[in-house]
Amino acid sequence: MLTYKLTLAYDGTDYAGWQLQPNGTAVQEIVERAIERVFREKVRVHGSGRTDAGVHALAQVAHFQVPKAKAKIPVANLRRAFNGALPPDVRVLKVERAADGFHARFSAHEKTYRYQIFCGEVMDPFLRRWSAHWPRSLDVAAMRRAARVLAGRHDFAAFSANPQREQESTVRTLKRLSVARHGKLVTITATADGFLYKMVRSLAGALLKVGAGKLTAADIGRFLASKQRTALVETAPPQGLFLVKVKY
Amino acid sequence: MLTYKLTLAYDGTDYAGWQLQPNGTAVQEIVERAIERVFREKVRVHGSGRTDAGVHALAQVAHFQVPKAKAKIPVANLRRAFNGALPPDVRVLKVERAADGFHARFSAHEKTYRYQIFCGEVMDPFLRRWSAHWPRSLDVAAMRRAARVLAGRHDFAAFSANPQREQESTVRTLKRLSVARHGKLVTITATADGFLYKMVRSLAGALLKVGAGKLTAADIGRFLASKQRTALVETAPPQGLFLVKVKY
Repeated sequence: MLTYKLTLAYDGTDYAGWQLQPNGTAVQEIVERAIERVFREKVRVHGSGRTDAGVHALAQVAHFQVPKAKAKIPVANLRRAFNGALPPDVRVLKVERAADGFHARFSAHEKTYRYQIFCGEVMDPFLRRWSAHWPRSLDVAAMRRAARVLAGRHDFAAFSANPQREQESTVRTLKRLSVARHGKLVTITATADGFLYKMVRSLAGALLKVGAGKLTAADIGRFLASKQRTALVETAPPQGLFLVKVKY
Repeated sequence: MLTYKLTLAYDGTDYAGWQLQPNGTAVQEIVERAIERVFREKVRVHGSGRTDAGVHALAQVAHFQVPKAKAKIPVANLRRAFNGALPPDVRVLKVERAADGFHARFSAHEKTYRYQIFCGEVMDPFLRRWSAHWPRSLDVAAMRRAARVLAGRHDFAAFSANPQREQESTVRTLKRLSVARHGKLVTITATADGFLYKMVRSLAGALLKVGAGKLTAADIGRFLASKQRTALVETAPPQGLFLVKVKY
């Protein structure tokens, strides 16, 4: 078997997330169908992780295997072939041969996500698919103070949408959690060795409340230490979230 | 009657253009319905001009009139009321009282449009709704030379999609026609006292061919002087076009 590594960008608006599921169309399914059309062979595509319904990717990474006898198309021609078989909201940016044993999920050791919040009174219609809306100004300095509390190696159980669902440890190293403002767009960037279930949207939801003056950095520190999810931490809506980078 | 001036932004992707028409939903219709819901009064909304199906606006201007007796809502509250009655791809940015006799179309004396072309090999899925795609590099210097030939006061009959349809003179003053590049996005900005039918998309189509090396600035000068539309000038696709500003 030959292993291929794909780097994909997708607009998640019209998909039920990355992973195959009974209701709605998953990006994984769309990608598998495109590969099957090109190779004339059933394949299973493994992503670096799930993205939820409505979440986007600037560079999701996935892998799949094809029997050597079927892999007749030069790798340099595959990107064009796959994109020809995909809808315009899913694009293959790169196709590479990967070493045997490469696994998009298990070989990943760092991921970066970005969360966008538009904070103008009237939502920009050109950003509505790619950002959450907060119709008042946000205190970015307060958000940065709270982000400094969260960064580092911690048990993030309080920022998982479902701590019971986590199969292993809920300790993660949040290497970077930064907040930037460009005009009316506030952007949160999170880099970690891994993320819990809906963790980035939970961090974004918490920082949004801090920016809105409803929570303080001290509250965030207390939630973190409690290791218990509280209703005060809301999961921010999916359309603001982008998977930006996966490192191997 | 009181006259109101609206400034509107819209994502034109899912609309059959600004103007009311038998097939498909027009932005004008959506705006009229929203105003009617707020004022409980039938209104006719007049835009500064039509935008074609799929064309966007960062700041379309429109006006409408309401009998004084019906105009009970303070103007400061109207933006929120209208936006509450509009779908998220159409937003009212500003509502103002206008002087009697103000007409969004006839009082306009300058308009600015922008045309976006993404020139990466793989189309960016987050730009596919807002730009044309040219999968190779563009010679921006050559496009600028051709733009200099087009700028100024000329008979633009060769850049109307339908010169027979033009009701009056086809002479316009193109005050500015500039070409900029930001990464893989090439942007054409056109400012004029008025534009002929599909003129900006025809100018963009011509400049795109110059950038692609298929036409020269001298060819463009010949087309302009001929005052005849040629099949060599194609109308660039609608999704790259934005109405940016209308001056009164």
